[in-house]
Amino acid sequence: MTLSIAHLGPPGTYAEQAALAYLDLHSTPSTTLRPYASIARTIQSTAQGETHLTIAPIENSIEGSVATTLDTLWQCSDLQIRQALVLPIRHVLIAQTPNLQKIKAVYSHPQALGQCQRWLATNLPQTTAIATNSTTEALQYVQADPSAAAISSERAAQLYELPIVQRTIQDHPDNCTRFWVINQQKTADLPPVIETDQTYTSLAFSLPANQPGALLKTLQIFAERSINLSRIESRPSRRSMGDYVFFIDAEISAEQTTFHSALEQLQASTEVLKSFGSYPLVTIS
Amino acid sequence: MTLSIAHLGPPGTYAEQAALAYLDLHSTPSTTLRPYASIARTIQSTAQGETHLTIAPIENSIEGSVATTLDTLWQCSDLQIRQALVLPIRHVLIAQTPNLQKIKAVYSHPQALGQCQRWLATNLPQTTAIATNSTTEALQYVQADPSAAAISSERAAQLYELPIVQRTIQDHPDNCTRFWVINQQKTADLPPVIETDQTYTSLAFSLPANQPGALLKTLQIFAERSINLSRIESRPSRRSMGDYVFFIDAEISAEQTTFHSALEQLQASTEVLKSFGSYPLVTIS
Repeated sequence: MTLSIAHLGPPGTYAEQAALAYLDLHSTPSTTLRPYASIARTIQSTAQGETHLTIAPIENSIEGSVATTLDTLWQCSDLQIRQALVLPIRHVLIAQTPNLQKIKAVYSHPQALGQCQRWLATNLPQTTAIATNSTTEALQYVQADPSAAAISSERAAQLYELPIVQRTIQDHPDNCTRFWVINQQKTADLPPVIETDQTYTSLAFSLPANQPGALLKTLQIFAERSINLSRIESRPSRRSMGDYVFFIDAEISAEQTTFHSALEQLQASTEVLKSFGSYPLVTIS
Repeated sequence: MTLSIAHLGPPGTYAEQAALAYLDLHSTPSTTLRPYASIARTIQSTAQGETHLTIAPIENSIEGSVATTLDTLWQCSDLQIRQALVLPIRHVLIAQTPNLQKIKAVYSHPQALGQCQRWLATNLPQTTAIATNSTTEALQYVQADPSAAAISSERAAQLYELPIVQRTIQDHPDNCTRFWVINQQKTADLPPVIETDQTYTSLAFSLPANQPGALLKTLQIFAERSINLSRIESRPSRRSMGDYVFFIDAEISAEQTTFHSALEQLQASTEVLKSFGSYPLVTIS
């Protein structure tokens, strides 16, 4: 079987780097990397069986959640998280000209623009920041226009043979992004999970409408069992203002009895409940 | 005293509309609306005493949280929320040409682009979506380029005398945005608060590093007192991955004794705790 891995394209994105890092951890003989034009499409491709795995960014240490990953996971069915990867993010400025004064526009993914905003304000105050679908897509503007610059990775600059004007332009030195490796629950023959001592279980739920205290009730289920939550994120349910889908990362394995009983009680007090399973977190250096 | 209200500019943004709606609720004799180039700058202007009030978007019913509002509130000191306003959002497509096939690029604020993504994919599949700092800033591209379109409001089209090609292009009919009216805690002589039967109290906190169970402990403080939380949002603390600032909206008034005792206990189990006070929510039709 040739293992196919979906990631945000074109080649050279941080998602592709995360996919390569994931493959490095295994010795998978035969693999195809499948770049897609949006994060939503990567996850959908795995949900629809076009690909075996998706590597999708879930949050950045500076800019926070990647909303499209959460929203798409909620919309798809029968997906589970297999592994979490934390990848260091080192942005470079790519442009045809080495002269910063000649740069009029900077292109990149909104997350990358956000992660370099202080550097941009100090070093390129005269430029307009323009959002692209991926850090690599930004490079096409640099190829076409000598007054354009892009924020992308060292690898992307090499891949597209474009000059690096400045390295390490992210505002925070320990900028990193957490990725989830996602697969269909029923897919067999996947690379083994890399075990670490950090195991998480993630789930998402919506609450029955017009029931005050409903969120409190669900949080009590975790509190009573001393299950620590490392993160709670809310996303709009898109039904009405004040109606949310909650995403929770719990510091527990789904195999523990405590978690089983929590899940049972959650079934009763939530409207829709999705468990994405347990997964160990690996940090790439 | 001339009351000055900061909002995201240029004139014609939804934030300006929220400011006008807020003024409509009062009969304030003398007011200046002060447009700023970014949401961060509006809130900073009030924190620094340049303006009396800021009207800042906090979340949209479709696209979710406005991260920059949360991050800036956390960075500033001594600010409080005076009122919440929910404003219906009705997007229109503005372009020089009525022929959709001639449109090559659509400009708008990323939130507005997100709120119309299905409409764009169906009606303008050939166009590139380009992010701007505000929905009104997008109009300058329409003025300059006959193949450009903007997503903005009916009011903005009138203000800038540009043609509306299509009305009600948002994907969800009940699209609305919640705004917070923010002032310095010490500012006197502000317009009276509009009382309603929906009162919220908002606060934010960071947790001491490397203390497993710290989030659990804070949630228990609310659970034990049956204080319902309508929303929990996490933002990266920007110190390290997995380290967050949590924003909570509680369905209680800060004047209640139950809340006082919760706040006291929170002081002990959080690292930094900021309370933004209590405020009633008004829905604009």
